Amino acid sequence: MPAVTVNLGSRSYDVRIEAGLLSGLGAAVAAMPKARAAVVISDSTVAGLYGQAAIDSLRQAGLAAALAQFPAGEASKTLATYSRLFDDLFAAKPAVDRDTIIVALGGGVTGDLAGFVAATALRGLRFVQCPTTLLADVDSSVGGKTGVDHHAGKNLIGAFHQPSAVLIDVETLATLPKAEISTGLAECVKHGIIRDWSLLDFIDANRDAIMAADAEVMTQLVARNVAIKAAVVSADERESGERAHLNFGHTIGHAIETLAGYGQLSHGQAVALGMVAACRLAVKRGLIDTATADRVEGLLERLALPTAWQGDPQAVLEIMRHDKKNQGGRIRMVLPTGPGRVDIFDDISEGCIIDAVTSLQP
Amino acid sequence: MPAVTVNLGSRSYDVRIEAGLLSGLGAAVAAMPKARAAVVISDSTVAGLYGQAAIDSLRQAGLAAALAQFPAGEASKTLATYSRLFDDLFAAKPAVDRDTIIVALGGGVTGDLAGFVAATALRGLRFVQCPTTLLADVDSSVGGKTGVDHHAGKNLIGAFHQPSAVLIDVETLATLPKAEISTGLAECVKHGIIRDWSLLDFIDANRDAIMAADAEVMTQLVARNVAIKAAVVSADERESGERAHLNFGHTIGHAIETLAGYGQLSHGQAVALGMVAACRLAVKRGLIDTATADRVEGLLERLALPTAWQGDPQAVLEIMRHDKKNQGGRIRMVLPTGPGRVDIFDDISEGCIIDAVTSLQP
Repeated sequence: MPAVTVNLGSRSYDVRIEAGLLSGLGAAVAAMPKARAAVVISDSTVAGLYGQAAIDSLRQAGLAAALAQFPAGEASKTLATYSRLFDDLFAAKPAVDRDTIIVALGGGVTGDLAGFVAATALRGLRFVQCPTTLLADVDSSVGGKTGVDHHAGKNLIGAFHQPSAVLIDVETLATLPKAEISTGLAECVKHGIIRDWSLLDFIDANRDAIMAADAEVMTQLVARNVAIKAAVVSADERESGERAHLNFGHTIGHAIETLAGYGQLSHGQAVALGMVAACRLAVKRGLIDTATADRVEGLLERLALPTAWQGDPQAVLEIMRHDKKNQGGRIRMVLPTGPGRVDIFDDISEGCIIDAVTSLQP
Repeated sequence: MPAVTVNLGSRSYDVRIEAGLLSGLGAAVAAMPKARAAVVISDSTVAGLYGQAAIDSLRQAGLAAALAQFPAGEASKTLATYSRLFDDLFAAKPAVDRDTIIVALGGGVTGDLAGFVAATALRGLRFVQCPTTLLADVDSSVGGKTGVDHHAGKNLIGAFHQPSAVLIDVETLATLPKAEISTGLAECVKHGIIRDWSLLDFIDANRDAIMAADAEVMTQLVARNVAIKAAVVSADERESGERAHLNFGHTIGHAIETLAGYGQLSHGQAVALGMVAACRLAVKRGLIDTATADRVEGLLERLALPTAWQGDPQAVLEIMRHDKKNQGGRIRMVLPTGPGRVDIFDDISEGCIIDAVTSLQP
């Protein structure tokens, strides 16, 4: 079974990828020092599918286990849900103490919320990520970013808090709607663009098996993507430099997602649009040729991800001005500089951004 | 002017103690790298007294400055207030970015709340502590503990987030009610008990000047206490060992404070009661002699702090069982082992705790 190590000194951890791994959750948690009790945090959908299996696995390993759940959906990623989860957490029996381990069982919203609860309960509890969506497998479960949205923008409130382990059971992808697989694929395409152009070929060649959530292909896909994410995070945990490369497609993408209203576009759809706009901007700037941008757009189309969007470019720009990754009032963007390579730019004119977003009009 | 360094490697910072220092806030913040904008967080009382002075100082130093306030009182130390502060923060102009600096202007509640906002806004902003109460000066402003209460207990939600600087203007103590000075003195007595017995003599000899908030005596008092706190925190930032000594008087004290209901007893009053109970427990266990315990009780009485309390010992014990500092279901307590010395014990019987709390009955 593939395993990838995220190297962060004393906070290093392994990401294990395997079909059926959820049944090994209890053994993995029980192997942690002073493990006696765990609280599983999950959304209503995933709790129904895998909550009992997780609890059973923990109890069979001799641990006390409780389940806290919240309504499924991005709309739950708020301080209000975070607050309610603490009510459940502090009502759990046995009482939560500093050795309690939080298990995040679900997609990106669950990982971000449960991770933020873990980061701030008793000023920091250990937690284990058990992602159940492709997006969470290849992106949010690795790297330690936790938090919630604010009506002023996504992920504005949160903390860096690395998990103690990440257990990826690719069998859980079998129950995932196809649209969710497409959404995860947007981040996979991103990883290819920023670090490994051949990953685009792998995705293209295995499109059908991926959409069918074939366990063997998914194991390979997830392992390749986690390896890229882990390498970037290991080199730059706090996003002072290289980690910002992972924001490729996200600067315009987040703004479009915000403008459309949470839930109108999936995160992956918004990132796909952001990547298309960023590639076109890079072509215009002479950083890459048209063929490179076309390779990205063609693949996104075959993956049923959008490459066109009807919306107000000026409003997108306005939201970008408030992006938390801006520094000194300047908009920072990651742009491709060749196949599998990107760089950070903070000298992009607002006119260029408007042009790139305008080019998305159908 | 005295300055004390908290040594935490790359996160080290200075605590400056000086009459009139608030007027130097702007210069101190402007000297920080990439400082362009600051948001002052303060409660309604302190904002009225010193908010404008802080804003003026920041603006005179060329910084953009905004003020966010919340209703004064321990009852505000909740996730609800935390959430509302983000609404203000993200509405501030210019828009908050990663270089924005949070200024915590006020007492312990303000420092804990504003520090937690700073810890989690955009996953971590720099912040400066400007404490305005004796309790905040000598205790909560130094050490990086931030957070809020939950109805299940005090400080259950929060983060470690060290300030970039602590500026203590002892002149602000002149507007502090006498009861608040007594409250702060409880922590000063605690510092004496755990590290420096002669500090008890200093406090006793200067009682009148302290209660009158004499600037020179206060500067000495605060500097001695900050030096003790800084040394303990420098040796053990995350409370894996020695830092737990600072919890002397707090295990029983927090439980009494919770049982009485927030706001019924001040934190200092609760800690005074906790220290009395802990000293009596230590006498019973043969760790210290009666004269040592009497020295503490006599001083607390002369400082107008309580040494007797009417309440249900069994209920106190029940709350102690849920203390977040417990490990493995065992109650941990810090007990004096001699003048200026303490140690951590986790083998104290519940009967001994009941006896000690019962001894507080008037």
